[in-house]
Amino acid sequence: MTTLARRIRLDLAYDGTDFSGWACQPGRRTVEETVAGAIATVLRLPQSPRLTVAGRTDAGVHAAGQVAHVDVPMDTDPTDLSRRLAGVLPADVVLRSVSIAPSGFDARFAAVRRRYRYRVTDAPPDPLRRRDTLVWSRPLDVDAMHAAAQGLVGEHDFAAYCRAREGGTTVRTLHVLTVERADVVVVDAAADAFCHNQVRSMVGALLAVGEARRPVDWPRSVLDARIRDSGVTVAPPHGLTLVSVDYPPDDQLAMRAVTTRARRGRILDG
Amino acid sequence: MTTLARRIRLDLAYDGTDFSGWACQPGRRTVEETVAGAIATVLRLPQSPRLTVAGRTDAGVHAAGQVAHVDVPMDTDPTDLSRRLAGVLPADVVLRSVSIAPSGFDARFAAVRRRYRYRVTDAPPDPLRRRDTLVWSRPLDVDAMHAAAQGLVGEHDFAAYCRAREGGTTVRTLHVLTVERADVVVVDAAADAFCHNQVRSMVGALLAVGEARRPVDWPRSVLDARIRDSGVTVAPPHGLTLVSVDYPPDDQLAMRAVTTRARRGRILDG
Repeated sequence: MTTLARRIRLDLAYDGTDFSGWACQPGRRTVEETVAGAIATVLRLPQSPRLTVAGRTDAGVHAAGQVAHVDVPMDTDPTDLSRRLAGVLPADVVLRSVSIAPSGFDARFAAVRRRYRYRVTDAPPDPLRRRDTLVWSRPLDVDAMHAAAQGLVGEHDFAAYCRAREGGTTVRTLHVLTVERADVVVVDAAADAFCHNQVRSMVGALLAVGEARRPVDWPRSVLDARIRDSGVTVAPPHGLTLVSVDYPPDDQLAMRAVTTRARRGRILDG
Repeated sequence: MTTLARRIRLDLAYDGTDFSGWACQPGRRTVEETVAGAIATVLRLPQSPRLTVAGRTDAGVHAAGQVAHVDVPMDTDPTDLSRRLAGVLPADVVLRSVSIAPSGFDARFAAVRRRYRYRVTDAPPDPLRRRDTLVWSRPLDVDAMHAAAQGLVGEHDFAAYCRAREGGTTVRTLHVLTVERADVVVVDAAADAFCHNQVRSMVGALLAVGEARRPVDWPRSVLDARIRDSGVTVAPPHGLTLVSVDYPPDDQLAMRAVTTRARRGRILDG
């Protein structure tokens, strides 16, 4: 892109069931490739534009409030782009809004918080929600799960709950980790960012507490050990949804992006 | 079935997307055939038993709280039947409970109330709910829809909102018809019973009011005309879910079944 580019913010929702995750992979159907391909089609670009995303969701993980940005030709009208993309995108990807990004906006590095939700049921499942709800065949003690979750809240090195990738820090600030029984058992997690597999690993540890295979203080002791624990099962992807991404006020966007890059070196995952 | 039969009550949920409705039809995948076939398999019956259902849902319509009954050999244990059926049924049918029916229970004729819900959105849809939510491309005036709905509540001849079938009365008592904006626009309908296509026809009339194609008093004037109005579009099936079925206390079951049969002659639809 030249200086004659306009940065567009895309707010997206998708059913991750039939996608091999967000990130482009040769020969696989991914959300990134689907959206970038649709943009190239409607803007008649010679090749798919590069998208930058807040949360690089894995295969099978859903999004209600994913955020991405893309740089497009200066004369692109967001309202027109939105209307035309809606006609091209498949039914499992919905563009919630298309807007001109404020100055300094970066979907990945300017984000201050990601919110995820994990749904699991220990009762007969609703067949209409089987795409985004894990079915658990044993009763879950939600109070024990919630108590165990509180031991993980705060700024910690989450290496024990992250799939290893080379480089970068695994220190994150977990703002919220709650477990409650609504229509199903719902785990809500919010952090500045999450390492790869972190939410699903934490949920896996909490499920072990919920069915009394592990004591309430076990997830915290796993955290303190700071190495992957083979006792932690990564919960299946389909129960997980990226709910929303928060950004600072417009006048703090550029500064946020700079400090995020500096602090984390390299983000391992959204 | 001989007198050595035990009546079993089945509480079911299903995702109607991939079914040609409840009722058996040669060569089609139906919920009745799927459930009856599963019962025959686990009980090693020579042929599929006949099921009686509270709401004969059409192709594409879902159920959260469908109720059916089936007469099975006297030595059938409901807990064991439930466990074995769960292992045989496909993922889009969930048996919520299996119990011995109280004396006089008839899933169809003893029911006192059916509750349906229709989901429609005029906002960017949640792709995870596209199987049970109609997407409407124009803004809906929910207050106007709700006001129009109140004109239909009560005991009326709903012939104008029913697909014609020979015989039987089309008089029904509509207890509830509300329209409100929750996560999407939700139409809740409850009646002693509904005629064939009645809920979807009423929703179709309310949608015409919601987008201001018709005045608020139009659905009531259609009702009063007592003949099908070509201006009423039957709303698509996938937004509709049978939420629950109510029965009287056990000691009134048999009497209810008798009076229902007498009053309606023949029920046209659940």
